[in-house]
Order: sequence, then C-alpha cells, then structure tokens
Amino acid sequence: MNANQANQQTIERMIGARPILKTIAQASEVIPALRERRLLHAGPPIEWDRMSGPLRGAVIGATLFEGWATDAEAAEELASSGAIDFEPCHHHGAVGPMAGVTSPSMAVYVIENQTHGNLAFSNLNEGYGKVLRYGAYAPEVLDKLRWMNDEMGPIVKVAIEAAGGLDIRALLAEALHMGDEGHNRNKAGSLLFAKLLAPYIAESSADAATRRKVVEFLGDNALSVLNPVMAACKAMADAGHGVEGSTLVTAMARNGTDFGIRVSGLGTDWFTAPAGIPEGLYFSGFSAADANPDIGDSTITETAGIGAFAMAAAPAIVQFVSGKPQDALDATLEMYEITFGEHSHFTIPPLDFRGSPTGIDIRRVVELGITPRVNTGIAHREAGVGQVGAGLVRPPIEIFEQALLAYAERYDLG
Amino acid sequence: MNANQANQQTIERMIGARPILKTIAQASEVIPALRERRLLHAGPPIEWDRMSGPLRGAVIGATLFEGWATDAEAAEELASSGAIDFEPCHHHGAVGPMAGVTSPSMAVYVIENQTHGNLAFSNLNEGYGKVLRYGAYAPEVLDKLRWMNDEMGPIVKVAIEAAGGLDIRALLAEALHMGDEGHNRNKAGSLLFAKLLAPYIAESSADAATRRKVVEFLGDNALSVLNPVMAACKAMADAGHGVEGSTLVTAMARNGTDFGIRVSGLGTDWFTAPAGIPEGLYFSGFSAADANPDIGDSTITETAGIGAFAMAAAPAIVQFVSGKPQDALDATLEMYEITFGEHSHFTIPPLDFRGSPTGIDIRRVVELGITPRVNTGIAHREAGVGQVGAGLVRPPIEIFEQALLAYAERYDLG
Repeated sequence: MNANQANQQTIERMIGARPILKTIAQASEVIPALRERRLLHAGPPIEWDRMSGPLRGAVIGATLFEGWATDAEAAEELASSGAIDFEPCHHHGAVGPMAGVTSPSMAVYVIENQTHGNLAFSNLNEGYGKVLRYGAYAPEVLDKLRWMNDEMGPIVKVAIEAAGGLDIRALLAEALHMGDEGHNRNKAGSLLFAKLLAPYIAESSADAATRRKVVEFLGDNALSVLNPVMAACKAMADAGHGVEGSTLVTAMARNGTDFGIRVSGLGTDWFTAPAGIPEGLYFSGFSAADANPDIGDSTITETAGIGAFAMAAAPAIVQFVSGKPQDALDATLEMYEITFGEHSHFTIPPLDFRGSPTGIDIRRVVELGITPRVNTGIAHREAGVGQVGAGLVRPPIEIFEQALLAYAERYDLG
Repeated sequence: MNANQANQQTIERMIGARPILKTIAQASEVIPALRERRLLHAGPPIEWDRMSGPLRGAVIGATLFEGWATDAEAAEELASSGAIDFEPCHHHGAVGPMAGVTSPSMAVYVIENQTHGNLAFSNLNEGYGKVLRYGAYAPEVLDKLRWMNDEMGPIVKVAIEAAGGLDIRALLAEALHMGDEGHNRNKAGSLLFAKLLAPYIAESSADAATRRKVVEFLGDNALSVLNPVMAACKAMADAGHGVEGSTLVTAMARNGTDFGIRVSGLGTDWFTAPAGIPEGLYFSGFSAADANPDIGDSTITETAGIGAFAMAAAPAIVQFVSGKPQDALDATLEMYEITFGEHSHFTIPPLDFRGSPTGIDIRRVVELGITPRVNTGIAHREAGVGQVGAGLVRPPIEIFEQALLAYAERYDLG
C-alpha cells in the first residue's frame, strides 16, 4: 500500500466516523489514568518547569479543585515537586480547550464513534470571564467548576441520555450552514446544542431556579458546544490514526510552550517546536505583548477539517479574529492545497457546498511551504488573567519537516 | 420637501424604529376591529368569492375555531353569506404568514416600536405539516391552535415578559450573521428566540411535560420567530408610512389572488394586480400545477430590507428555494438598484458587512423595470393540502406603475 492508498484509508475512516455524544461521566470513571494523582493537559508532553503561565495557573486551580492543596502557594509547591503526574489529554482519548487541564473529579463529555467504536472525552465549557482554561484559579473560578460538576453536569447528563445521545457530526454539518466554523465560532452550534437539550432540562425534576440557570448557561455560552465538538473531532481523528504508511496528521495540539503534531502512520510520536503568538484582535487594554504562545487542544478541529479550514463558511468571524470576509474564503481555499480530501458531511455554502478541506498531508505542507491555519483564542501570558483576544496562528513548519524525515526513515525511503 | 428628502425621512424612520416584542395578547383585546364577527387576512382587501383555496380553507378553519359554525360546510356557508366581515391584517397593524387569517380569540404577539410608539401584531406560528396558514382546517389543525392558544401562549407570554421583552431588531441583526435572511430562512433567528425564552419556560410552574413540550415546539420549529419578525418589520415599515411626498413602499402583501403594495406618500390606497406563481423547488410529488398564486403578508420582510433583499447573507437557502449561492449574492446586489438606502442594523457579512438594501423606491422600480424579489413558501391551490414547496417570486410591475401614476396625480407632477 503506497502513501496515497494509506491516506485514502485514513480519510475514509476520519470522514466515516460518526461521533455521538452519549453521556457525561466523572473523568476518573472513564479515563483509567485519572485514577492516580495525575492531571491531563493540552498539547504535547510537558513538565512543570517548562509550562507557561496559563497552564501553570490551570494546574494550580485543578490541584485546589481536587483538594490536593488548600491554597495556591501549596498547590504550586506540590505541582513543582514532582508529586503530580502530568500527561497530555491526547494520550488518553481526551482533548481540552486552552490549558485543557482535566482532573480526576471533573465531569467530562463522553463521545462514542459509532462507526469504529472508539471513545473520546472533553471537560465541560466554563463560558467567559475568569475561567480555569485560561489559567484562572480564584475562588469564584472553582465555585463555578463545582456548580458545573455537582449541579449542571448531572442534569445535562440526564438530558443527553433522554435525547438518546446527540449526533455531533450532524450538528456541525448544520452549524457550518449557519455561519460557524466550529472552532472559534460556535454560536449556531451552541444554540443547536442548547436547543436539543433544553426540553429535557425544562422537564427535569430539579428546582425551578436550577432548571432556568442550566438552560440559560448553555444557551448564553456561545462556546457551550466547543468541548463536545472537540471530543467529536478527536474521535474522528483517532479513527484515522495508525494507518500504516499514511502521511496525514491526526493530532495538532499546543501546551502553551510547544506546538506538536502526530501523524497517522507514525505511531505515538510527537513532532514539536516552540508555539507561536497568534495574530489577531486584542480586547481593549491588551496587546500582543500580553499574549501567551499558542495553547490548547482545540486545533483538533482543524485536524478534522473544520475550524480555520472551514472558515469560508463563517464570514462574520472576521469581526472577532480580524480581516475581511474575503480572507475567510481565502483561508479555506488555501487549505485545499495541503489536504488530501474533502469532507462529505461538512460542506461550505459560499463555496457551492464544496466539502471542507480535510486530512493535512505532511508531504504537501513541506513541499508547498504552506502550514495549516488555525483559529484560536489568545490567553494572557500570566496565570489567572484570562482571554485577551482571538486570532489566527500557524504551527511552525519544522514539525512537519521533522515528521516527514521520520516518515522517510521509518518507511525506508532514504 | 422633494421626494428624495421625503424618502430620507421615511428611511430614517424605518431604520430607526426599534421593535420590541412586549407580550402575547388575545387578538380582540389589542385589535379593536376584532371585537366584531370579523376575520383578518393576508394581503390587500378581498371578498369571499375571489378568495383562493388556501385562504378559503383558513377562513373555514378560523370560523370553526371561533365556534361560529360546527362543521366545514356550515362554516363555508356562513363565510360566503356575507355574515363574516373580512379585512386585511394590514388595516389593523397586523401581519400574518400565508393565509394570515387572524380571528378574535387567537393569541397574537404584540410588538412595540420603542422609537416611535406604534404597535404591530402577528399570530403564533404553527410549525409544519397541516396548518391553518396553508388553508388546512382538519380537527388536528384546530386542536393544535387550541393548544397554542390555551397552553403554550400563556407560558410564552410570561417568558417574554420575564425576559423584559425581546429586541427583535437585534435578534435579526445577529441572525443575518448566522445565515438567515429573515423570511424563508429563520433557522438561526428561531434558535435565538427559543434560547431567549427557554430559561423562563424551564422555570415555569407549568407541569413538567408541558414545559418540555413548549420548549421543544419553539426550538424545533425553524419558523418560530417568523411571526414576531413579521410584526417587527410591520412596526418598522409603519414607522415610515405617511411621509408626505415619499415614493418608498411601506407594504407589500398578497392574498392568494392579488399582490398589493402601499406607498409611504400615498395614504391608505392599495395598488394591486394578480399575484404570480412562485418559481422554486417543489416537495416530492408536487409541481407548479399544484401551486396557488403567491400568498401572505410575509413580504413585509422584504419591505423592511430583509428576506430576499438580504439573501446574500443566507447562501444555504438555495438548497430550499433553488439556485446557486451566487444567485443569493446577485439577488441582494440587484435590490440595491431599486432601494433608497442601506440598513445600518442589518448587515451582510459576505458583502463586507454592507447594510441590506432597504426602502423600495417605486420610481426606480418603474424606471429600471426591476421588481422586488421575494422569497416565499408555496401553498397548494386547494384548501387544506398545505405547503408544496418554496421559491422566489416578484410582484407584477403594473402595481408600481399604478402607484407612480397616482403619485404624479396626487403631487401634481403631470
């Protein structure tokens, strides 16, 4: 089987995967690695001493949330002492936006790829303001996490199950026809998500104020569906991973220090290089000088053919990430240059319903010198400040060159 | 004041109008004309003998709903006898989709234009399948109307009031950035509408099954918001009506037999001619031979600068009304030729956020021979069958010529 045949198999598996949101569970119940004192984080592997500010902040917050320490200083001491094990979400079928820190007690969405049977997980989205994923760990951040875990989670779990599960691929297909690109713009998807769950939450036997608060929280957070979408993309990408000889990327992720990729035919190796600073629009009072390097597992969306790859579907996003609507069209058109296939479920109305560019081929990236485009939120470089903007970024080309070299060695093409 | 100055005033009033959905009321409470045995209908004035099948069907249904007759035959006899008074919705600040039949007991949305104080009304949207607005009057049609009136209406009324009213102009502005055009495609707008109301419905003291059913009904009906949107457009258009010397259209409406317009500077006169048959896509098993001539007050959306006028914002709509995404762009671009202004609140992302073409100028229509484009549902020509497709239609140019002649006479330009 040559690389093209292998890639055809990879892409068919990725596109054929049907990710269904099945339920919510406690992370340690469904991710065996979290039965130990361990935290999962976004991006490729990293230890405390190389972690950026927002990732450290999220680690401190999760340590407090778990009750492993009682104040931030003690949490930092514990985390830096080696007493907590850090592993990438990606090593355990999980993904998390921004810092992506997922701890044993946290509730996670459970996605099942009904075509191939693999599972994927993501934590719950906290909404806006001071949030753990941007490295905040103030008491109100932890209070919100506890509310999400103890009150919202169980109600949403019942709603998901009562709905018979939610087909996230179908939801995304519809959202792309409603001006979303599925990564940085999930307005329509989050409304569809809230719409599917709200009837069951309304019906819940929880008290009236809680019913209202949960429906409101899901509906008012235009990122509500981001985490299930990311887990769905992880389930799709994982379905395409491990095809012998395939040159397609099955993971792109950043830990706030390094940008890493994995390739279908190259096993569990990460190819990494320093993450860049996104270019985009900053919130009032902030500038690029405040920005942390690129962070988060949310690039799993671009890996699966949406996000910046489907930006042509989302012209209104330029008001958030900068640029003109034509730039959104151009972003998608450029990505066709470096992808192996076109998605049969994710179609783009302004491009005559053409399938979104899917399956990043490391050969084309290196040959053309065109790196993937990524839409992203921008975190403040210090722990606890939060989001300072949104914009566009590209991974360093070296990681694709490294991967191609490793491919040549492994498949003896030298 | 010359025509251009008058038109500037008209357009400023139309665009400056801020329609807020305030509550739901019984039609006879807020529309004094409905304190008599009278029915309101879509379009310009018409009597029973010239009514088309779907309008007659809706009249029969409303007559049964009111209890003025106990079976369809008796209802038809009553309606044709002259014992029921028929008047256009438009004569009473109201608008209704398709047949638009509004009877005294029906619940209506109440919109208040907070800038100028005028009110507008529209009945509740019934969703899909056999519905009164397409002329169906079977027992299940009336049962659904009763459920909407007696169970859903009161709960939604409380929710609207608890939300402090809904700003429909802001909702539309957002929906146009989410692939809606506000007339035939109201997917995003209806989700936004459901999202704003669902927390309060979830909180309601109604029983659990009813809470669920109401949230589900609003969320699953992609036309939920059409009626409040139409009433909002009516409130905006009415704000621009009656400006001495203005040549801008302030109402376009069809009763299934005639297409009529009103002009800001020409008082209460209607200019009418036979309505055409829409061209579009038919549901399986139906063809143009089944189609009723164009029907409904929903052209108030195009009158206010959305609908087909904002079609460039809604490329995915062509899967419903036929054509290519480029046709959607072209539709909006063409409408700039015959409009006086560009909307400052309704902007179109694919056209670099240009304001939608607003304020149809009868002078330009006649001079250029370009009639307004309208997106519409297509009703079966027989009462009770329902929707058979969706497509595009244009009003007959004669009505603009008639209006321009009347303008010349009235303002002594002969």
